[in-house]
Amino acid sequence: MYALYYSPGTASFVVHWLLIEMGIEHELRPVDMEARAHKNAEYLALNPNGVVPTLIVDGQPRYEAAGLAMFLADRHPQAGLAPALDDPQRAEYNQWMFNLANTLQSPLRLWWYPWDLQAGDEAVRAGAQTRIEATCERLDAQLAKQGPYLLGERLSAADFYLTMLMRWTRKMPRPAHDWPHLGAFAQRMKARPSFAAVYEREGLTEWA
Amino acid sequence: MYALYYSPGTASFVVHWLLIEMGIEHELRPVDMEARAHKNAEYLALNPNGVVPTLIVDGQPRYEAAGLAMFLADRHPQAGLAPALDDPQRAEYNQWMFNLANTLQSPLRLWWYPWDLQAGDEAVRAGAQTRIEATCERLDAQLAKQGPYLLGERLSAADFYLTMLMRWTRKMPRPAHDWPHLGAFAQRMKARPSFAAVYEREGLTEWA
Ligand SMILES: N[C@@H](CCC(=O)N[C@@H](CS)C(=O)NCC(=O)O)C(=O)O
Ligand SMILES: N[C@@H](CCC(=O)N[C@@H](CS)C(=O)NCC(=O)O)C(=O)O
Repeated sequence: MYALYYSPGTASFVVHWLLIEMGIEHELRPVDMEARAHKNAEYLALNPNGVVPTLIVDGQPRYEAAGLAMFLADRHPQAGLAPALDDPQRAEYNQWMFNLANTLQSPLRLWWYPWDLQAGDEAVRAGAQTRIEATCERLDAQLAKQGPYLLGERLSAADFYLTMLMRWTRKMPRPAHDWPHLGAFAQRMKARPSFAAVYEREGLTEWA
Repeated sequence: MYALYYSPGTASFVVHWLLIEMGIEHELRPVDMEARAHKNAEYLALNPNGVVPTLIVDGQPRYEAAGLAMFLADRHPQAGLAPALDDPQRAEYNQWMFNLANTLQSPLRLWWYPWDLQAGDEAVRAGAQTRIEATCERLDAQLAKQGPYLLGERLSAADFYLTMLMRWTRKMPRPAHDWPHLGAFAQRMKARPSFAAVYEREGLTEWA
């Protein structure tokens, strides 16, 4: 039985969405980020990074959204959301998971939390924006070349992760869905019943 | 047969090291970064990010150092460097791979390439340094609690990745090996014959 420490629309979203998509039984434990519950001693004992998500797996707290997404897709192969270890697409799947972490989640974090760097919020945001837009350009070209998903015809956990990250660009000067193939991709992902379900569970409305 | 596009001491190091450690046959293809060969059209067709490494897997170019490290450890299970998908430590292993990518490789990249952000190189470096030192503190506490490796008694690809990232801190005001448990960890990793072998192949001397 899994228990997910989450806050609506944050990095926990992809884990929550996959739990619903794959029909995996789970319990939700809201983290009141406005009250800074993610920085209290109890939560830091579960996740010393002081961020959401944390997922309880076999009784132990585990973190990192992308790592949890891969873990769930591997642990529940009947959902077909991860190429098996001996599948020719496995290296490509790993590539996208880390490429999204490095070239999209990481600058997005700077865009949302520029003060982390203490190098001038406006300047950091501008630099992050340039990197994010370059990533969108590259991902759009990838989907144009070999879409409609990151692994071509085959849907995988990487697509759920990308959709969450695209959602985070919605307030940026040029949101990711503005690129044509990324936009069509997002429409397709948002049409999944599990998307409406996770929106409802998290009380989200923006970017519906 | 694998072919690795690499440049000495860069992010390709962990992939090269693992290929040697696991005794996997491979071919090396040097990328002349001083001549900016990683930005020419031929290389960008292999890796549109314009970075090393790229690994040719089953005839296809794949990238992202951490994803390739996981891929090789999974594809060659006899080396024992990755918990199997149904192993209780799999979630923990995924966690460390992404935690190192997000909290160590990502700020290290800012420290080495502060101009990427165009937010003032000195300020970006200082912010990156703060984040890297906080990560070292957290990782040192982890090894103190459950060492000597990231998965406790069990060596995994995550330890090779961490060692490479520690090496990249060697010129920082406080290098990662200055933390006691991280320092002991690095000594242990550097004592592996494969470490001397990859140093020799790449012509490295610093931090030997
Ligand atoms: N690398 C982590 C990052 C998670 C993350 O950045 N979470 C944000 C919400 S989207 C958070 O908890 N921020 C609170 C903070 O940093 O203080 C992951 O992917 O799980
Ligand atoms: N996320 C990539 C990053 C690789 C990376 O940053 N490589 C550096 C060398 S350590 C590089 O090629 N830099 C050249 C550049 O960015 O122009 C990975 O982990 O493979």
